[in-house]
Amino acid sequence: MEKVNIEEKLSLFNDYWNPRIVGELNGQHVKLAKLKGEFIWHKHDHEDELFYVLKGMLKMEFRDKIVEIKENEFLIVPKGIEHKPVAEEEVSLLLFEPASTVNTGNTINELTREDLERI
Amino acid sequence: MEKVNIEEKLSLFNDYWNPRIVGELNGQHVKLAKLKGEFIWHKHDHEDELFYVLKGMLKMEFRDKIVEIKENEFLIVPKGIEHKPVAEEEVSLLLFEPASTVNTGNTINELTREDLERI
Repeated sequence: MEKVNIEEKLSLFNDYWNPRIVGELNGQHVKLAKLKGEFIWHKHDHEDELFYVLKGMLKMEFRDKIVEIKENEFLIVPKGIEHKPVAEEEVSLLLFEPASTVNTGNTINELTREDLERI
Repeated sequence: MEKVNIEEKLSLFNDYWNPRIVGELNGQHVKLAKLKGEFIWHKHDHEDELFYVLKGMLKMEFRDKIVEIKENEFLIVPKGIEHKPVAEEEVSLLLFEPASTVNTGNTINELTREDLERI
């Protein structure tokens, strides 16, 4: 039972769109990720996802609107809703989601990351 | 689907040891709480709990050690583990735990809060 320091964990990696697992509880994962650029449109059929912005500003595009998530704000994207994260500048992000969640949801391509590293 | 601003939500209440619900996903609640003073010894038989310190420093006492959780650090307390939160100065806290979690766990007393307010 060790505490987790967010800054320390963020200093351990620099690649984008490759979440790391930093905690696990009740079948859910706590992940950290760095984002820059545009991700792909996708949805998760079975998982709601929480995006908590630690640094920067994340634009979450939906088919009918865009939500700008700034530092110390979070957004919950319900299962089944198509979304596309866009980071015009680097964003540091905390994610809460079920351990079963795959980053690209129903779209498997070169951005898909499985067997995420635990740091 | 609205984003949540942590500072704004924290400004809506000032009482201690009375968590508010600010998000729900996958059967889990995201809560905010302000703490000051000593809580009681308790455990949760079925729920792991995540304590993320937003402001201040939270001492989490266990039967065999104390963990000091500082700003932008979190600690996961596994189910079944007795713990006692102590905030010598005011602490602002984010909690992530199953919707079934009662703040005082297996100990029901005047500090127990049920039917938490959603803000």
